[in-house]
Amino acid sequence: MQVHPTIAGTRAASRTARARGARVGLVPTMGYLHRGHLELIRQARERAQWVAVSLFVNPTQFGPTEDLERYPRAFERDVALCEGEGVDVLFAPSPAEMYTPGAQTFVTVEELSKPLCGAARPGHFRGVATVVAKLFHIVEPDVAVFGEKDYQQLQVIRRMVRDLDMPVEVVGVPTVRDADGLALSSRNQYLSREERDRALCLSRALASARDLVAAGETDAERVLERVAVILSEGTAELDYAEIRDAETLAAVQRIERPVVLALAARIGATRLIDNTMLTPA
Amino acid sequence: MQVHPTIAGTRAASRTARARGARVGLVPTMGYLHRGHLELIRQARERAQWVAVSLFVNPTQFGPTEDLERYPRAFERDVALCEGEGVDVLFAPSPAEMYTPGAQTFVTVEELSKPLCGAARPGHFRGVATVVAKLFHIVEPDVAVFGEKDYQQLQVIRRMVRDLDMPVEVVGVPTVRDADGLALSSRNQYLSREERDRALCLSRALASARDLVAAGETDAERVLERVAVILSEGTAELDYAEIRDAETLAAVQRIERPVVLALAARIGATRLIDNTMLTPA
Repeated sequence: MQVHPTIAGTRAASRTARARGARVGLVPTMGYLHRGHLELIRQARERAQWVAVSLFVNPTQFGPTEDLERYPRAFERDVALCEGEGVDVLFAPSPAEMYTPGAQTFVTVEELSKPLCGAARPGHFRGVATVVAKLFHIVEPDVAVFGEKDYQQLQVIRRMVRDLDMPVEVVGVPTVRDADGLALSSRNQYLSREERDRALCLSRALASARDLVAAGETDAERVLERVAVILSEGTAELDYAEIRDAETLAAVQRIERPVVLALAARIGATRLIDNTMLTPA
Repeated sequence: MQVHPTIAGTRAASRTARARGARVGLVPTMGYLHRGHLELIRQARERAQWVAVSLFVNPTQFGPTEDLERYPRAFERDVALCEGEGVDVLFAPSPAEMYTPGAQTFVTVEELSKPLCGAARPGHFRGVATVVAKLFHIVEPDVAVFGEKDYQQLQVIRRMVRDLDMPVEVVGVPTVRDADGLALSSRNQYLSREERDRALCLSRALASARDLVAAGETDAERVLERVAVILSEGTAELDYAEIRDAETLAAVQRIERPVVLALAARIGATRLIDNTMLTPA
């Protein structure tokens, strides 16, 4: 595996692979890899003969009061994990390599960026869309793989690709969970043991909502009331819990087709997100 | 020459050319081609073995009160001109092909889009940057050629390419003029014979400014006063005339390095733009 800190080196490696006839895959990450990331890499390898992983804690998608500085990092371990998964190139640029002086260009996906995490984190999805567009231009992948855990991010990227005619297939991969249901996230690292136990209320609330809808409940409000009760029992501080169209993220009152239930909540100082599809009976 | 109305057909043709080892060139246009466009095509053909011209009157770069509906069109003549220049593919999509329902993604180049034409035409450069990004993703050119007559547009595109790491070389081509100095523009079509004579004051004002600076004048204000006098004598209604940094478009008071003088003025109902470099003695 090659580790490239530069845009030029990464692009050259990708172009060499393509010239050999390889289909090129990309898995964008912020590092501190867990089993969820490894699953993304495996899915990329199933679809491409040559796979790049990018590792970049992108400053432009963090708000001024967010956890950019303390976001967990473990470069050597990430390198070893990528090596173990047969990754061809790890692209690990510095912020200065990615954002040169005078940089002022942004990609915005307007409607999809407004609700949910977009409301709580102004500018977040502009940062995400912009850096993913850059990564696509650097690696020029045929296929790029993202986790469904960041559900809104996945929809933003799908829309960007469609709207800007990017020649990239976007693949979403179901969330990987611990045995007790907790969605894997690099931010789980922030949780104390006691907080980790409390955090299980997120996946419990989602499961309960799924059951309710499978049993015939079609009123979104009623489902969300159940979710709020379970999160409250778990002493999670709710940021949002909403039921929305799975693609447009438009608000939904009646659950008459598969929709997404997305939520964000704080356990102590740690903000966690999770989501599930709700499929009517 | 192939004429493609679809994104898929154009991309397939470009990829076939590249697979054969050709360097791919792109000349984006809004059609109604004149000798200025033909020069862009020739410059593209000098740099690429396979050249696509796009012909698309992009609605998102026109304001609600602008000339989208009456923008001149001459499709059959454009096809013949492209054929005559040895163009390989003419990409001529409909608005519905370029903008699918729900499209909501925009590329903005923030600072460069604010002054000059950006101040007079809100949203114009957002529309330009977005459609050019789309064209780059569709044709995947190695080199794209633009006229220097749309000077701010050229800088916006250069910055977008740099900031988003697009793998495209951007080439600017000097403005082509009629023998009497008038910069070629599809919008010259709107001018009556009498208006066309009056419109010569634009290039006359630029030439006079060049002479003044070559003779030692370094005060931007003084140069702009001369420009205003000449435009006024020509009964042009000035929209703006400004001297700015050639790359950042920052305002310039003293002319101590090559800078750009850009202006926009109305001759009757027709808005024309022109520009020149000013090089101190």
